[in-house]
Amino acid sequence: MSAAPTRRVLVANRGEIAVRVIRAAHTCGWEAVAVHSDADADSRWVVLADDARRIGPSPARRSYLDIDAVLEAARDSGCTHVHPGYGFLAERPEFARRVTEAGLTYVGPSAEVIESMGDKAAARRTAEQAGVPVVPGSGVVADAAAARAAAADVGFPLLIKAAAGGGGRGIRVVRTDDELDDAVATAQAEASASFGDGSLYLERCIENARHIEVQVVGDTHGNVVHFFERDCSVQRRRQKLLEEAPAPGLAATLRDEITSAAVRLAAEVGYQGAGTVEFLVEGQAFYFIEMNTRIQVEHPITEMVTNTDLVAEQLRVAAGEPLSVTQDDITLSGAAVEFRINAEDPEQDFFPSPGELVRFDSPNGPGVRVDSGFVAGGQIVPYYDSLVAKVVVHGRDRDEALARAEQALTEFTVEGVVTTRDLHLSLIADEAFRAGGVTTTWFEERSTGPR
Amino acid sequence: MSAAPTRRVLVANRGEIAVRVIRAAHTCGWEAVAVHSDADADSRWVVLADDARRIGPSPARRSYLDIDAVLEAARDSGCTHVHPGYGFLAERPEFARRVTEAGLTYVGPSAEVIESMGDKAAARRTAEQAGVPVVPGSGVVADAAAARAAAADVGFPLLIKAAAGGGGRGIRVVRTDDELDDAVATAQAEASASFGDGSLYLERCIENARHIEVQVVGDTHGNVVHFFERDCSVQRRRQKLLEEAPAPGLAATLRDEITSAAVRLAAEVGYQGAGTVEFLVEGQAFYFIEMNTRIQVEHPITEMVTNTDLVAEQLRVAAGEPLSVTQDDITLSGAAVEFRINAEDPEQDFFPSPGELVRFDSPNGPGVRVDSGFVAGGQIVPYYDSLVAKVVVHGRDRDEALARAEQALTEFTVEGVVTTRDLHLSLIADEAFRAGGVTTTWFEERSTGPR
Repeated sequence: MSAAPTRRVLVANRGEIAVRVIRAAHTCGWEAVAVHSDADADSRWVVLADDARRIGPSPARRSYLDIDAVLEAARDSGCTHVHPGYGFLAERPEFARRVTEAGLTYVGPSAEVIESMGDKAAARRTAEQAGVPVVPGSGVVADAAAARAAAADVGFPLLIKAAAGGGGRGIRVVRTDDELDDAVATAQAEASASFGDGSLYLERCIENARHIEVQVVGDTHGNVVHFFERDCSVQRRRQKLLEEAPAPGLAATLRDEITSAAVRLAAEVGYQGAGTVEFLVEGQAFYFIEMNTRIQVEHPITEMVTNTDLVAEQLRVAAGEPLSVTQDDITLSGAAVEFRINAEDPEQDFFPSPGELVRFDSPNGPGVRVDSGFVAGGQIVPYYDSLVAKVVVHGRDRDEALARAEQALTEFTVEGVVTTRDLHLSLIADEAFRAGGVTTTWFEERSTGPR
Repeated sequence: MSAAPTRRVLVANRGEIAVRVIRAAHTCGWEAVAVHSDADADSRWVVLADDARRIGPSPARRSYLDIDAVLEAARDSGCTHVHPGYGFLAERPEFARRVTEAGLTYVGPSAEVIESMGDKAAARRTAEQAGVPVVPGSGVVADAAAARAAAADVGFPLLIKAAAGGGGRGIRVVRTDDELDDAVATAQAEASASFGDGSLYLERCIENARHIEVQVVGDTHGNVVHFFERDCSVQRRRQKLLEEAPAPGLAATLRDEITSAAVRLAAEVGYQGAGTVEFLVEGQAFYFIEMNTRIQVEHPITEMVTNTDLVAEQLRVAAGEPLSVTQDDITLSGAAVEFRINAEDPEQDFFPSPGELVRFDSPNGPGVRVDSGFVAGGQIVPYYDSLVAKVVVHGRDRDEALARAEQALTEFTVEGVVTTRDLHLSLIADEAFRAGGVTTTWFEERSTGPR
């Protein structure tokens, strides 16, 4: 229904985020082209897209991670833009660069910005330049001797982080001096294997903190705005289980400081597109951890409390249009929580449970949204992550959101795979969670400690 | 999670509204008991309720319309409250009275109020007392002679209406003097057969008007508030096809006048519970038609633009609690549209198409809600109405809501029955509809006139 020339975006991803991008593209009047591996040939995103291309065999490295195959699909299907989603190629500077070199527009920041934020030590320096507090830590440490020297300043417990890591990967805790040398050696080997880059740095381990992140979006007209924060403290092995917006009980002054800091950081690098600035918050102190230069899994809770479509904003920015809102337009309305329903068995140490979704009866009703890459009959295949659906609820306040969550989770009937649904039901019934403000260690202490 | 004594509501209905009431009950901390006919034994609302009772064979008059059976189910299952939904027993004063006599609380206004609004001639008089404009018309006409005398005042074209009618039933158009006697005789016979009451009255037929209705809720503490208006002008044979909120292009002053009039009328009768005051709007003039003393099919669009749960408000009122909001709290946010997806074939004069929902892939995503009494594998049985689902969309403005509607309707995949989905897709693509403000004759003229 747009009079503008047709824009056509290649959705270089799979699962719920592929569906999500297709929906946003269509509501913006764009066309969307899906890609799929062999295992995903009959997938929901292929059905919903205007066109689709096979990009290779099932293992991700031979399809969703194959830059040549993805670019060939984009060219062959006449796309003008490429949306990376999250995961896979979404934070690879090389991918953004190759998309641009192919004469297409990358939906996201420039390769240089992705690179500068992907290098965690460089990102820390940028944050310091922008006057954003960082966790006390070191620069890149080249070897065990350098690590020992740096550790004396940083103090124990500390974290060894891969400079090229992200999303909780490539992180080790070191509690005492004795453990340091071995940990550095192991971490270096792992980082080289995982990220092709063995660079490490040290950071003080802040153990009793909340993980609070700020959604920002910048456009090509010099505007950078924030869409308030999300609290993602409920984590298992540094993977988020559920997220909420706004952060329960966060003082208004602290919220202002954190969101302003995030905007300063994004503005410092001329950020264009959607990004997330992650912080640890301990009491009234907050520390920058890293910036994710892409849309985040948990973006829907922000959409619900700010009444915006963040993926549509990404597309607008990529089309050179100004943001649809100014900072003053963006207000907080109510509370939202997202639950990641994974095909994993919490009773079996979260072992993956692939299979066919024999039944898949989604919840619905006021304030309930379910983002999923599947419908009944779909297949959870073992090649990729185990996300079945994101159940997202919104209410006028946190109590209403949690009451709706209980109903929605109870309604959600999945047969054919084991899911984490019941775990989420137990989490929202937990007094500590209901009180609000748990820290990142809460879930694991709850799981392993006396009940 | 409520510390209050357990409240337990019998949901005296079926289909999507039964599911809707169960969801609201649970989020309010109430228990909910379902009822079902034989045809509905395996229905979704039976699964979602805390308990369920069979109330009789499939035909509605032997189950959902059987007051004794419904009351027996309420008593037998230990209910404290009875929610009538819409349709079936929802506007029968006798039902409200019998519920109260059985020592239970009826979720809705008193039998006397239902009765006074159910008598359309009495409702007109009440409106006049409250200073609410009514369509020029007559009192009850006893016979053809009285009708002729009244018609001279009212003027042609006019409507003959059954005093006991409602929801568009029992209405005949008379265009000339010649047609009057026959029309009165036929209408009287029909009204007697349909409503057990042959009383008729005449009303000027306003042909180029919009159907605009106002959602009101009153509590037992003397508060009556409105939740703005809905435009339900897209109708076929006086049945609504789709509805939107707010009414497109309605001037703010006219909105104020109409909503104030609705509140005055509700306050005049000491209205308690949720109700809808319906108006015809022609230019800047508006006329009261009738008040529906129950929740309405199209209530979700009001929920979306006012960020409230109207069914939860009904339950609060029935529990003697004050409304959760004051008039000042209730503000309009964006635009919403509801599409009634019926198992009917528009190509075959909307002939019902019962059957099994072999596939039932609901749309989802930002601003999309689907209220349905069914999941995949469910049965659309021939005994009841043909509503499969209500697709409800919300956007920051009408354009965004309609863009989301197009995507949601396109996504919605139903196999096993023919539905009205494609009709809705053609309606939202229609220039006259997109411009906003069509009148109640638009759909039928569009359907029968040259295209």
